Amino acid sequence: MSEQEERIPKVSEDLAQKIRAFKDMHPSDIASEIDDLALDEIRASLRELEDEMAADVITELPLEIQTRLLENMRLERISDIIPEMNSDDAADALGNVSPERLQDIIEKLPDEEAEDITDLLEYPEDSAGGIMQKEFIAVDESMNLAQAREAIRRDEDQDEDSSIYVYVVDAERRLKGVLRLRDLLFRDLRLKARDVMTTDVSSVHVLDDQEQIANLFQKYNYSALPVVDDSETLVGLVTSDDVMDVLQEEATEDMQRMVGLSGEEGVITPWHRSVKNRLPWLCINLVTAFVVAWVVSLFEGTIDRFAVLAIFLPIIGLLGGNAGSQTLTIVVRSLALGEIENKEWRRVLIKEIMVGCSLGVAIGLLVGLISWLWRGNYIFGVVACIAMMLNMVAAAMAGVLVPIGLKTLKVDPALASSIMVTTVTDVVGFFLFLGLATLAISFYAL
Amino acid sequence: MSEQEERIPKVSEDLAQKIRAFKDMHPSDIASEIDDLALDEIRASLRELEDEMAADVITELPLEIQTRLLENMRLERISDIIPEMNSDDAADALGNVSPERLQDIIEKLPDEEAEDITDLLEYPEDSAGGIMQKEFIAVDESMNLAQAREAIRRDEDQDEDSSIYVYVVDAERRLKGVLRLRDLLFRDLRLKARDVMTTDVSSVHVLDDQEQIANLFQKYNYSALPVVDDSETLVGLVTSDDVMDVLQEEATEDMQRMVGLSGEEGVITPWHRSVKNRLPWLCINLVTAFVVAWVVSLFEGTIDRFAVLAIFLPIIGLLGGNAGSQTLTIVVRSLALGEIENKEWRRVLIKEIMVGCSLGVAIGLLVGLISWLWRGNYIFGVVACIAMMLNMVAAAMAGVLVPIGLKTLKVDPALASSIMVTTVTDVVGFFLFLGLATLAISFYAL
Repeated sequence: MSEQEERIPKVSEDLAQKIRAFKDMHPSDIASEIDDLALDEIRASLRELEDEMAADVITELPLEIQTRLLENMRLERISDIIPEMNSDDAADALGNVSPERLQDIIEKLPDEEAEDITDLLEYPEDSAGGIMQKEFIAVDESMNLAQAREAIRRDEDQDEDSSIYVYVVDAERRLKGVLRLRDLLFRDLRLKARDVMTTDVSSVHVLDDQEQIANLFQKYNYSALPVVDDSETLVGLVTSDDVMDVLQEEATEDMQRMVGLSGEEGVITPWHRSVKNRLPWLCINLVTAFVVAWVVSLFEGTIDRFAVLAIFLPIIGLLGGNAGSQTLTIVVRSLALGEIENKEWRRVLIKEIMVGCSLGVAIGLLVGLISWLWRGNYIFGVVACIAMMLNMVAAAMAGVLVPIGLKTLKVDPALASSIMVTTVTDVVGFFLFLGLATLAISFYAL
Repeated sequence: MSEQEERIPKVSEDLAQKIRAFKDMHPSDIASEIDDLALDEIRASLRELEDEMAADVITELPLEIQTRLLENMRLERISDIIPEMNSDDAADALGNVSPERLQDIIEKLPDEEAEDITDLLEYPEDSAGGIMQKEFIAVDESMNLAQAREAIRRDEDQDEDSSIYVYVVDAERRLKGVLRLRDLLFRDLRLKARDVMTTDVSSVHVLDDQEQIANLFQKYNYSALPVVDDSETLVGLVTSDDVMDVLQEEATEDMQRMVGLSGEEGVITPWHRSVKNRLPWLCINLVTAFVVAWVVSLFEGTIDRFAVLAIFLPIIGLLGGNAGSQTLTIVVRSLALGEIENKEWRRVLIKEIMVGCSLGVAIGLLVGLISWLWRGNYIFGVVACIAMMLNMVAAAMAGVLVPIGLKTLKVDPALASSIMVTTVTDVVGFFLFLGLATLAISFYAL
């Protein structure tokens, strides 16, 4: 084995001082302190922490660093730390570790943890199974409340929590109900769980999409939801902190995907990885940009005679692109929040066209007026005005139809949608403006 | 009074059928059923519901509709419904009602509710005070655990909850500690709260910003945080469902503000309000677009001789704008998530410049090559290549410096940042491209 078990790097006095302060700090704060250190220094810091604390700190580090730590730390230490993590956090941390290394780690783990984590790793990352934890309290329906309370007392994970979810299952571990907190506090302890439980308990399927689940939490203000498999067996628990992570992740993803980013890039992503992420969509953007250039080239003769037309192009392009982005942003976000249901997009389209017409008239008249005052040529002013108006309507339509179309094709509605919308507004805007200008020139024999 | 107390509109058979189904539905689902009806129909639907159910349904409706309902419903009904709401939801619903109407409603409410809501309405919407609820359980430190349990039993609001937060206060209602669930379940009931409580309880100040609070919840995985005022008096409670709303709201706001939207627009916003929201920033965009046009006009003579240059403008503009938007999106999102701390922006800037250089070389060479192959003019190909490279670096710098600059000025870093960045990339890109082309033309005496 190539592990550097003996190589304990020297710790700088600076770092040593940092480490001494860790005793009184929250794991999250320790994580923020060390997340910008070199890997060896992070390892040196973790070496000074108890297993449970180290587990909490690692959980709070960026996922990229977690992966690198689990690739490089001693196997013995890892097998001490992993069981101290919540199973969902452990599965996340191990999700990107190389298959051979993962195998090595799993083998060293206690059986129960190994099984939980292997289970969780099989579910898609963005499904209920991918975000749920295996830690939950389930009691058999034939137990009495005193036994249910005993189950809580034994459960160390809930030590610090102010929430409790005691689910009731039958002999096959199928979800039957849930015990309310006040049942456990105030009802006769000799009563059976099945006679006290609330039976209309909501649950999600283990393969349900995380975004759907987040919308459920938001809509019904749940603070946790049990997860069941095909046979209604209780397999896990999704809690509100998982959902907060999902909400942030999905919002980041939408924002990034609109401009052709991977959805998972952050400021800490190494620069060469960022280049690799961004280049493909810029290349596609390059193709669409040459389509726009080709449209302009159709009117090269006109521009050759009236170079002033080139000056208007950025105005048409910038305003059309921005108006399109405004509509697009509203639609992409509303789709993500579940605010646009099946057939409602037609109403959204009609509204946005009305908005586009109004903005088009206002901005079109302004563009025309300023152009006329600036260049003293009223014909091109009128042409710019009309092209701007129509372009605003095109922008509105593209802003609605691009994301709705992507969704219909079962693709993420945000995917590079901004690139597509700005291409549409440039193509339509430039074609209209240069086309109308060419017509006007021949009509007025300029 | 101008209320239409007698005018009970006829209910269509269609609606009557809908209403009959409400009995077995969750308030959220009823809200989704009726939120696209006319106001009179919504009122007719609410008339069929018990006060508590009506309160829950109203809470789940879009805020705009809540406002219109409270402006138009009978005062007597409102004064029955409002006390059934959580105080924070009631304050949200009443937040946009006209001052006179608000006065009328408050006067009709029971004293305690009136006071809670008046209190909450005084805090800024995006502060802890603006999102907290007044419903929480606080026991005096001299009480024993049996008395604390009795306080929970009496508290109807917690009826359905699986979470419980019992805070301990002194005689002046200053926050002293919190009781854990397991204290209430398993400790000797004769013990005093002050001897059992956990004393290191985190809290937020009533004027703390909601985005900061959301970051705290995320960082430390809280499920609720008590809110205190200047004298450490416990005044409210922020729960994870409030924070989920904040996360969604802030993400929506950032996405929208980047493209010059109000941050609060949705698909249900009436079209004329959308026009009013979007027009101001489009007008600012109009000014920046004319700045870009002016830069192009500096080279009108060059374009007059070589119209082919106009064809390259959209390529420079689209790619520079998109690269800038990519960097901008990463930075705005990281700022919102608290991932960039005080001095770290320099490191982000250096990284983005490296990314910009790499992308510039790749995209620049491609643009140069395709241009040369397409137009057969290698000089303009080289000029396009160099301009593209430098523009990518400018895009990277603008994408970092615009939001960081806005933040330094204590303005929302997202504010219209996309408009600014695309303006910068257009100005720099066009100036470089047309300037270099002019130099090349005179150097080669084309």
